[in-house]
Amino acid sequence: MKIAIVGGCGHYRYVLQELKNHTLLGIAPGIIGENLDKLQAALAKAGIEAEVFYDWKKLVKNADVVVVNTRPDKNAIVSTYCLERGARVFSEKPLAVTMEQLEILGNAAEKSKGNISAMLGIRYSGWYLTVKKALGHIGDIRMINAQKSYKLGARPDFYKNKATFGGIIPWVAIHALDWILDLTGAKVTAIGADTNNGHNNDHGDLEMTALCQLQLEGGILASVSADFFRPEGAPTHDDDRIRIVGTKGILEYMDGKVTLTNADGITQLPLEEGEDVFRLFLEDSGITEQDSFYVTELALNLNEAAEP
Amino acid sequence: MKIAIVGGCGHYRYVLQELKNHTLLGIAPGIIGENLDKLQAALAKAGIEAEVFYDWKKLVKNADVVVVNTRPDKNAIVSTYCLERGARVFSEKPLAVTMEQLEILGNAAEKSKGNISAMLGIRYSGWYLTVKKALGHIGDIRMINAQKSYKLGARPDFYKNKATFGGIIPWVAIHALDWILDLTGAKVTAIGADTNNGHNNDHGDLEMTALCQLQLEGGILASVSADFFRPEGAPTHDDDRIRIVGTKGILEYMDGKVTLTNADGITQLPLEEGEDVFRLFLEDSGITEQDSFYVTELALNLNEAAEP
Repeated sequence: MKIAIVGGCGHYRYVLQELKNHTLLGIAPGIIGENLDKLQAALAKAGIEAEVFYDWKKLVKNADVVVVNTRPDKNAIVSTYCLERGARVFSEKPLAVTMEQLEILGNAAEKSKGNISAMLGIRYSGWYLTVKKALGHIGDIRMINAQKSYKLGARPDFYKNKATFGGIIPWVAIHALDWILDLTGAKVTAIGADTNNGHNNDHGDLEMTALCQLQLEGGILASVSADFFRPEGAPTHDDDRIRIVGTKGILEYMDGKVTLTNADGITQLPLEEGEDVFRLFLEDSGITEQDSFYVTELALNLNEAAEP
Repeated sequence: MKIAIVGGCGHYRYVLQELKNHTLLGIAPGIIGENLDKLQAALAKAGIEAEVFYDWKKLVKNADVVVVNTRPDKNAIVSTYCLERGARVFSEKPLAVTMEQLEILGNAAEKSKGNISAMLGIRYSGWYLTVKKALGHIGDIRMINAQKSYKLGARPDFYKNKATFGGIIPWVAIHALDWILDLTGAKVTAIGADTNNGHNNDHGDLEMTALCQLQLEGGILASVSADFFRPEGAPTHDDDRIRIVGTKGILEYMDGKVTLTNADGITQLPLEEGEDVFRLFLEDSGITEQDSFYVTELALNLNEAAEP
């Protein structure tokens, strides 16, 4: 497969392992002046040579697959162009940062020979696969509480402007929204959201906290908490959590452990092996286009609901 | 102090220890036919003799302090009567189950020589006092996520009718709301809530899940998750949790442990001794009347917000 990478702002690390089995046509900035140093260093470390193109349109011309992870507001533009030329697109999430972009992208995807899939790679992490496999033990899902908490550190400039970043909900909370949609298989019937950008250490618009609340089909409730306040002294960058409340038990992931609480008490479950999200995408068995669009639309709607 | 107890539907256990230092005038049902067996058994076990009155108005006539914990929809009626006679009232939370009741009660409290305090006793549990004492370590509070999860078991009939019970928000989530208000010292500026009563094992109206979302002064966000799905096999009846996200650290209570995550990593804090909420009330240094009314009003507003 001939693969191209546009941009170095996102989760290009998802593709590094599998890239060795294919041809990397090259890499290109998605916007003038985009810094590709980290991407180049990661490729070099993985032993992959990469030609740098300064015109991404020229690069993607001959690509079967385009990995899109430039500045968030440009991802949909690049993806639309690639889909229109029949390429398959592995895109940073969210697929788009505005509803208008998403609409145009959706039309392109519908007509394309190619397709598009969002980098919702946590779905194939060991803990998530463990949780998913154990769902049968808790009866009907009635409520989900999910958490994303990240260290802030010093973020690139694009995080500081909501127009270029999108926001904490489409960038961070979207993972938790994706888990909720995937685990319940239900559509969302009502939403609410709040965000706040106070105490963001000179990161401009960047929202430091977000809460989302969902009603789903069948009377399932779900909440998402997201923040950039994970202390620098914490042992890991992120503190992902989920608590799935079922009629016959409660499943939780926290602190590296998956636990099941049911009639027999509390049991820690052995972790499944993680899978390669990019390999699955190439095999057409990864995150579906439908899921990628639905969760992006949901995140953008919540983003709007959080506007004061 | 001459003390009377009206009703046996609530948390009369809060008063048992301290009652030994005072005179129990007697106990009475707050509604005709109210079952006082458990209250009588608890008093007997504590070595306290109790005369049973069938007319609570006759009982409270000579009381300095009235402990009110009858059927939730009757608490405000009894409390109003007692306040009008100048007694001090230690009431089950919520103080009232409708805004009309609360308004009438508030007027009575304003004119009374006595006062009223809600049974928000978790505020004096060891873990809560530990969390409160450690707040100085986390800088400014930016977000709080709180949880109440209870085993359902088989509940008395009054739980099955929202008119007599009030709802999961004013009965259960109210504790978490109280923690949020107490820890932040902030007023609420926006609210949202959802509840669902599916899979409630023939408990009529009883809501099994609730999510509340708050904005508070200063851009603080807060969420509350409450449910009756804690599995029977779980080691404790309740699974209370709180996560307080500050600018300099995160404080958490869960599973009997209080932890602080900050620049130095994760530290488990030694637990403070709990205090006797009823003794503090008698000394006039417990839950204030103002707090009792505000959290009840908030819970009733959220209850309304959750209506479909």
